[in-house]
Amino acid sequence: MSSQKRFNVAVVGSTGAVGEQIIRLLDERNFPLHELKLLSSARSAGKKVRFKEREITIEEATPESFEGIDIALFSAGGDVSRELIPHAVDHGAVCIDNTSAYRMDPDTPLIVPEVNIDKISDHRGIIANPNCSTIQMVAALKPLYDRYGISRIIVSTYQAVSGAGAKAIQEMLRQSKEVLEGREAAPELLPVGSLPVKHQIAFNAIPQIDKFTENGFTYEEMKMINETKKMLDDESLEVTATCVRIPVVYGHSESVYVELKSDFDVEQVKSLLAAAPGIVLQDNLQLQQYPLATEAAGKLDTFVGRVRRDLSNPRGLNLWIVSDNLLKGAAWNAVQIAEYIAIEQH
Amino acid sequence: MSSQKRFNVAVVGSTGAVGEQIIRLLDERNFPLHELKLLSSARSAGKKVRFKEREITIEEATPESFEGIDIALFSAGGDVSRELIPHAVDHGAVCIDNTSAYRMDPDTPLIVPEVNIDKISDHRGIIANPNCSTIQMVAALKPLYDRYGISRIIVSTYQAVSGAGAKAIQEMLRQSKEVLEGREAAPELLPVGSLPVKHQIAFNAIPQIDKFTENGFTYEEMKMINETKKMLDDESLEVTATCVRIPVVYGHSESVYVELKSDFDVEQVKSLLAAAPGIVLQDNLQLQQYPLATEAAGKLDTFVGRVRRDLSNPRGLNLWIVSDNLLKGAAWNAVQIAEYIAIEQH
Repeated sequence: MSSQKRFNVAVVGSTGAVGEQIIRLLDERNFPLHELKLLSSARSAGKKVRFKEREITIEEATPESFEGIDIALFSAGGDVSRELIPHAVDHGAVCIDNTSAYRMDPDTPLIVPEVNIDKISDHRGIIANPNCSTIQMVAALKPLYDRYGISRIIVSTYQAVSGAGAKAIQEMLRQSKEVLEGREAAPELLPVGSLPVKHQIAFNAIPQIDKFTENGFTYEEMKMINETKKMLDDESLEVTATCVRIPVVYGHSESVYVELKSDFDVEQVKSLLAAAPGIVLQDNLQLQQYPLATEAAGKLDTFVGRVRRDLSNPRGLNLWIVSDNLLKGAAWNAVQIAEYIAIEQH
Repeated sequence: MSSQKRFNVAVVGSTGAVGEQIIRLLDERNFPLHELKLLSSARSAGKKVRFKEREITIEEATPESFEGIDIALFSAGGDVSRELIPHAVDHGAVCIDNTSAYRMDPDTPLIVPEVNIDKISDHRGIIANPNCSTIQMVAALKPLYDRYGISRIIVSTYQAVSGAGAKAIQEMLRQSKEVLEGREAAPELLPVGSLPVKHQIAFNAIPQIDKFTENGFTYEEMKMINETKKMLDDESLEVTATCVRIPVVYGHSESVYVELKSDFDVEQVKSLLAAAPGIVLQDNLQLQQYPLATEAAGKLDTFVGRVRRDLSNPRGLNLWIVSDNLLKGAAWNAVQIAEYIAIEQH
């Protein structure tokens, strides 16, 4: 790839849980970089980050930071994206946004490469990365959607604390230690940093991720519902979701029930999944093999198992879908999109 | 209650996680006891247990242990129940069995008092306590079943390690400590003690509880499916289940999706739940109030929240159901049955 075009890339949110993984992946994947600009809030500016043989100093992200940037990867929260992305677009950068700011914008393609890479060019400077819990589900369901059609999805999630950022990981580990030592576990951050009520996450399951909307679903649940329909370009698809935080560090697990539109053979479903890009089938009951968060952590793929037909509905199918929420669920999906842009512009 | 009839009660499995809770509840609830006989395997015989002002020595359970016993509560595993219950019945005891041994036996009523107390007298010496994950779900769904009818249930569970016994609690706490100290978490017991493959439960979610059956569902999942149909006496009811172990000590949580047979009003559903015996509605989104395993632990009730209509199906309803798996899910349901027998025979 030595003679290929090289890109000026900016990472916004360089010190966050996702930003760190984006930088690591750009490094490990040998992304064709000309310049790498690491941006953050004023608070983290000045820190140095090791990248290949050099050190890069993090700079404060401002509207002017994007001059000369070809690709900008945003994961610093919705407000930062809303504020800075228009400037980055004005400067000619293609922005890959990991926040929810532009996901439902009709002019912004919402991309999981395994699902709808054909839409990648339909952008006006912004490509949105879907929500972590949505990415892995849609990546796993796409081959089934294409082959059989899907009429409805009922999903319950088992989401890792890293989805709420590095501070949430620290809180969960601290609380775990407190409980093990027989002390009171002091909740300070979760379930939602900006809301007043706090609940213990250590040795618990919290059925709230993000704020509640007026219909009784959380924003996280509405993201799964709306983003899935947008990505599959199917408003008739019935989706319902219950999103739950559990004491896992990395890796979201999902219990997914789907109703297919046509008859299926379970072994054929497994073959389709095993052959699908980015999907690894882990489904050997004899060996007690199924996806596990601890094993998916650090890996780029989405793992699927517990594939079985509903005993009461011949078109009902149960699946257990696991992926690293910071990787395929965020950083890797974003870098994957950047790689497609790089290939396209080569 | 001083002049009431008093009963000779035996507890089989006195040193187990459930047995201990049964003994505590018989004490706290001032069950009308004449004699309390504590039974266990030979290994635990000789241990002493404090009960009110006295000490009771645990005896080895044998076929002759049940002479003169009125009520015997079994929670020492299916094999012990299958071996000893016929002898206890021969001795005239009414056996309340907390194992799966007799649950699907057509001559054995499967009782959750809030659901089908009318069936309690239909026994031939054995009354079965349902599976923990089934009890709390059916207790919460019964008022909705009676009012609206239910055509299908799709449940995903978040089950506490105490459901696998005291050793599983120890394993989970030990592994948690190992991970927090940066060591390898050594899995020795879970997911299933008698199976060869072991998985880490600390900071993980394991989609296997009990062994797999030939249809790809686990026995735990099949219990939820079959016991729910039996208790609601409805073979046409469609049930599918995914049972998952998570790192929680006490309290099973369940994400339950139901399709009702008739139209419903969400506020009326909440009112029905709030008024139902043994059910506590915890559903105030403004206050971020919903059931939590850590808060349900140690309590006798079943807690229900996150009550909301499926946005895509007007007869679809989502619920989050939590209860202490050792109490309503086992010991308390068994003692409750014993209390009804005591009242009946008074």
